[in-house]
Amino acid sequence: MKSTLHIVGTGPGDPELLTLKAARVIAASPVVAWFAKRGRHGHAARIAAAHIAPGTETLRFEYPYTTEIPVDHPDYLAALPAFYDASAITCAERLDTGQDVALLCEGDPFFYGSAMYIFDRLAPRHCISVIPGIPAMAGCWAQAATPITHGDDVLTILPGTLPQTELERRLRDTDAAVIMKVGSNLPKIRAALEASHLLPRATLVDRGTMPGGSVTPMAQAAAAAPYFSLVLVPGRQGLR
Amino acid sequence: MKSTLHIVGTGPGDPELLTLKAARVIAASPVVAWFAKRGRHGHAARIAAAHIAPGTETLRFEYPYTTEIPVDHPDYLAALPAFYDASAITCAERLDTGQDVALLCEGDPFFYGSAMYIFDRLAPRHCISVIPGIPAMAGCWAQAATPITHGDDVLTILPGTLPQTELERRLRDTDAAVIMKVGSNLPKIRAALEASHLLPRATLVDRGTMPGGSVTPMAQAAAAAPYFSLVLVPGRQGLR
Repeated sequence: MKSTLHIVGTGPGDPELLTLKAARVIAASPVVAWFAKRGRHGHAARIAAAHIAPGTETLRFEYPYTTEIPVDHPDYLAALPAFYDASAITCAERLDTGQDVALLCEGDPFFYGSAMYIFDRLAPRHCISVIPGIPAMAGCWAQAATPITHGDDVLTILPGTLPQTELERRLRDTDAAVIMKVGSNLPKIRAALEASHLLPRATLVDRGTMPGGSVTPMAQAAAAAPYFSLVLVPGRQGLR
Repeated sequence: MKSTLHIVGTGPGDPELLTLKAARVIAASPVVAWFAKRGRHGHAARIAAAHIAPGTETLRFEYPYTTEIPVDHPDYLAALPAFYDASAITCAERLDTGQDVALLCEGDPFFYGSAMYIFDRLAPRHCISVIPGIPAMAGCWAQAATPITHGDDVLTILPGTLPQTELERRLRDTDAAVIMKVGSNLPKIRAALEASHLLPRATLVDRGTMPGGSVTPMAQAAAAAPYFSLVLVPGRQGLR
């Protein structure tokens, strides 16, 4: 019987936003793996903790860098492929001895998730099952009580790392937007929202669905925000 | 004690993709409500069925039209506001007598969901809690084994109802795309994908995570598809 790599979305942060399927698969897996920043236990592991059975082998894959350099820095990008190679090999060793592995992934695994790099490496030779999760942005717009898209709205998901003129151009050409990877890009994002007359509609959400989560009108936001906070620009709210 | 309207995302279709929180709140609600097409029980109710306690009052809000006219037809759009008004009043009556109401919503409630129209009507006067759910698109890209966005990809969510030139223009200007509301728009969507050289990358997914779900390369798709099927165009898959 071939063993399976389960890539498990753990949702946006609230442990109760794990799916029934994720909880079942995590509890039944002899090996549970996750990614973590240096010196941190790992956010996905904390979300799933209650479902990891005693005696389960746990694999913590520590990123080569943590927030001391931005994740889009050339050194970071150069180190990551070797890191994903090694993590994939470690998973494959367990699969090859007949053990299922549950690889935890915050949010939804296939939506900007690190687990995709393991999927890309192991899919050609291994049986993989992907359990979708609630993306961080859905946790954020629920927490902010902000319906994001109605009717025939176009929604654009933008990384905050884009140049300001590019952010501005795309903000002018959409009904609704979500801006990811805010962090130190916040002043640039704010300027792009202002130039496209969307600042009054925009909301900054940090740690949506988590303890200490916050919702701030963009017009009142400070000069910087955590890297994984999001900016929400709801659509034109057409039909009511 | 003020009663609460819980707007509960039920996820993309597989009942196991309900969250632990959704299952708990549905089971504890004295009133469970949902939207349904004429003559159908209602998809959200089917997903949540195992968690609705015996003796729960159920409210089935039947849309004024079903698939005999498209949901973007002027007659449909004219009838909907009165329908949402009546549904909101029915929910408010239960809330005003001190009963919590769980309003079920397929996928994620704030992402093109009908429950937003109830939220818009009741939020000024009532206590509302929104439980996010896995959007249909996340169920579809998991089922299709298609990572949708890597790294700094821009993702554009497009309604298939847009004119062909507009679809084409937006497809040329994004890294990844999801096209919703496919149905009879399929030939137009296919032509827009072909013109933007994205046809070989595009996949049609129907009923993702549900029994009878299907995944078809767009290049091989038939001339029409169910209204709620989706087209996925994964991003450029930058860093590996």
